[in-house]
Amino acid sequence: MSSNPERDFVTGHLDDLHADLDAWLRIPSISADPAHAPDVEASAQWLAGALRGVGFPVVEVWPTAGAPAVYAEWPSADAGAPVALVYGHHDVQPVTPEDAWTHPPFEPTVVQTDLGPELHARGAIDDKGNVAFHLLGMRAHLAATGRDTPAVTVKLLVEGEEESGSPHFRALLEERRDRLACDVVVVSDTGMAAPDVPSAVTAMRGLADAEITLRGPGVDLHSGSFGGAVPNPLHAMASLLAALHDETGRVTLPGFYDKVRPLTDRERELMGRVPFDEAAWLAGPAASRTAAGEAGFSTLERIGARPTAEVNGMWGGYTGPGHKTIVPAEAHAKVTFRLVADQVPADLADQVRAWVAAHVPDGIEAEVHVPPGGVSPCASDLDHPAMAALLTSIGQAFDRDAEDVLFTREGGSGPEADLVDVLGAPLLFLGVGLPTDRIHAPNERVLLPMLHRGAEAAAHLWRELAAVPFAR
Amino acid sequence: MSSNPERDFVTGHLDDLHADLDAWLRIPSISADPAHAPDVEASAQWLAGALRGVGFPVVEVWPTAGAPAVYAEWPSADAGAPVALVYGHHDVQPVTPEDAWTHPPFEPTVVQTDLGPELHARGAIDDKGNVAFHLLGMRAHLAATGRDTPAVTVKLLVEGEEESGSPHFRALLEERRDRLACDVVVVSDTGMAAPDVPSAVTAMRGLADAEITLRGPGVDLHSGSFGGAVPNPLHAMASLLAALHDETGRVTLPGFYDKVRPLTDRERELMGRVPFDEAAWLAGPAASRTAAGEAGFSTLERIGARPTAEVNGMWGGYTGPGHKTIVPAEAHAKVTFRLVADQVPADLADQVRAWVAAHVPDGIEAEVHVPPGGVSPCASDLDHPAMAALLTSIGQAFDRDAEDVLFTREGGSGPEADLVDVLGAPLLFLGVGLPTDRIHAPNERVLLPMLHRGAEAAAHLWRELAAVPFAR
Repeated sequence: MSSNPERDFVTGHLDDLHADLDAWLRIPSISADPAHAPDVEASAQWLAGALRGVGFPVVEVWPTAGAPAVYAEWPSADAGAPVALVYGHHDVQPVTPEDAWTHPPFEPTVVQTDLGPELHARGAIDDKGNVAFHLLGMRAHLAATGRDTPAVTVKLLVEGEEESGSPHFRALLEERRDRLACDVVVVSDTGMAAPDVPSAVTAMRGLADAEITLRGPGVDLHSGSFGGAVPNPLHAMASLLAALHDETGRVTLPGFYDKVRPLTDRERELMGRVPFDEAAWLAGPAASRTAAGEAGFSTLERIGARPTAEVNGMWGGYTGPGHKTIVPAEAHAKVTFRLVADQVPADLADQVRAWVAAHVPDGIEAEVHVPPGGVSPCASDLDHPAMAALLTSIGQAFDRDAEDVLFTREGGSGPEADLVDVLGAPLLFLGVGLPTDRIHAPNERVLLPMLHRGAEAAAHLWRELAAVPFAR
Repeated sequence: MSSNPERDFVTGHLDDLHADLDAWLRIPSISADPAHAPDVEASAQWLAGALRGVGFPVVEVWPTAGAPAVYAEWPSADAGAPVALVYGHHDVQPVTPEDAWTHPPFEPTVVQTDLGPELHARGAIDDKGNVAFHLLGMRAHLAATGRDTPAVTVKLLVEGEEESGSPHFRALLEERRDRLACDVVVVSDTGMAAPDVPSAVTAMRGLADAEITLRGPGVDLHSGSFGGAVPNPLHAMASLLAALHDETGRVTLPGFYDKVRPLTDRERELMGRVPFDEAAWLAGPAASRTAAGEAGFSTLERIGARPTAEVNGMWGGYTGPGHKTIVPAEAHAKVTFRLVADQVPADLADQVRAWVAAHVPDGIEAEVHVPPGGVSPCASDLDHPAMAALLTSIGQAFDRDAEDVLFTREGGSGPEADLVDVLGAPLLFLGVGLPTDRIHAPNERVLLPMLHRGAEAAAHLWRELAAVPFAR
């Protein structure tokens, strides 16, 4: 046996991982499309069967008010062993525009590249790939350690509505709180900086959204008879949105930054270690001519560690062919805010209202709709001993020392904060996506060597976590 | 015979005017709707028949590349008599939303009000009412003066595409230039300040329009992964449009005001005489909470005598229910400019491009579309002797002295400048609409006593113009 029996097992059983994924990815479990509800159900049943095949003694499909989640549990025989809960999801994004796919999105296809074989399919990495590596990982852990049960109790909760905003996830957590009790949450729905840059996500941003309506005249007016003499709500909306950021790129909502935990020098130093080719990022995934944003922060800090405000849509007046000479009655905008620790989504309603009130001129009536809820930001504790276990595990899988595993931040938002909030456990992130994986876009793919390393890292992690002295 | 035989004749033949209008208004001559093309044709034929009935010896329906125009001519038997050309249109605006009409738009209905009887129908004043009074006016002129032919040669050109932007009108003028030769153009497509405030329009504004597209990322981007780090074209559009006016309400296009003929003290004094109840205007037709506009000018000056820029529509990104967290690829806006003498519509293309270039940030690509053409501003010469004839005629019809007839300006734009440009004749405006007539809106109406005065004023005008020494 080599010095890395987990890798030996994974390497010897790659076909199992590939076969699992091939079968699962053929199920078009698009949660946003009601027509695919039976597929989401089939996806849950497929995963439940696969988990039973691996040997999980407890496997259940949990119904929700929406799509079902899959729960599995493999208790450790060791008295007092820590409990880890893996989070992922088995639903996938829609595939439109389907004609932009080189290969049909639900016919997994392997493409050879300079970096190794890629598997193309919707869900290849987001999130079936990230969940599937745990099947092989658990087998590798047991085989490598010669155990009948894992060194830690491993629970999995794989929901079916993440791509639809997890509308029933918090209720599920609260309902099943006792079953889900754990010492640590391992989120497998993120990625790493690059194929040769093993890294761990340490934070995800939160989200709040607002819709703003500005009303001027009671009806659309003839601009020849009234234009230039009454307030135009489109002008007011333009001025309002132009004032969303100041000249340094900071968001102008009153109090917006009050609760933002400043980036420490250590955090900035850690983020600075992540190799990032901005020119390639702009030319590739960002499809943008230039970078732009808050002064004093790098692009990686802007998208990972700083709160932002983004106008996602605006509209009003005449939008058809030719021109129509009106002063329109209304203007509309949709704005979302990405939040970082320790911002609170519920604070945004008052902040948006105060900002709108400060910028709307006489004669324009403003209506602000900020839906309740939102998503809280969440973060790992870099100094928690479970983090050291994670870094060791990732390092081993990538042939690096633990201190060479870098930290990144995820700019997007998910239900992870609810896991922390309801279950009261610290967060780790173990995911093997890449920035170039085209998640949510046509031609989603996973680099298969990354999946193999994910399986190995998971196997190491269950061993390493057993020694972590969790507070109880 | 009384001292006002024109009025006697008009008063004795009101039923003819009412019957004419009732028949004509039942024809739904909506030029913007291809389905109504046969109605526009029927409207032209109805008018041609009515003009023959009045006695016009020359009546022709002139085809164009679009809807037909009606031409009529009644030569004066007096050697060297001046030639007047009446301009109007026989097409009408669409009637949507039709359920907002109290009476069906093409079933003319008389409603009694404190001001007298109103006739409700689409086109009641814009412009069938304003054209129809000329039928009775010509008969009154002949009867009152005891002539077989009018004191001036009267030509009429009544087009069928004014509500669609008169796309073929200039070509028609150029093609028929010799037949249309005249000493003065009398535009009957405007109105007066109030029922008890006889007035004459002295200017109409011009029009130019622009469509602006701003492009940022090559595709819609995930705002969690990219927002706050790349330029958002919606933010850029908001900043651009917010900069369309400065803090004093002036348009910021470079050179926009360079050719604007300043209002003279006399012009401002004349405009200031027009009674204007701003509170009632805001509460009524403007349907606006406040007035707003260019500093240093009254509301009537803003809408009649000053150039303006109005955003008529803007759109971009996600506009459906809920939210979608994107940095959109594109933003769009439609802007129109009202122009006054001596601005030139063709100048706007360069001005808009320069303004956009000055305000669009790095990383945003701008595309500006300014269609050729536009509408030139036009104005009457207040000191032309034909103006004195008009004021005398209006004054007589309203029992006022000529010097008590006020001057107003029309904020809207029409093809009148083309008449001046092609025919080289001075402009007079004789129209009897009111600001409360709801033109282009549901429940369009005409106050019938205003129509009666219009017929009488026209009758006086042909007599008065005969004495004007036109330069030839």
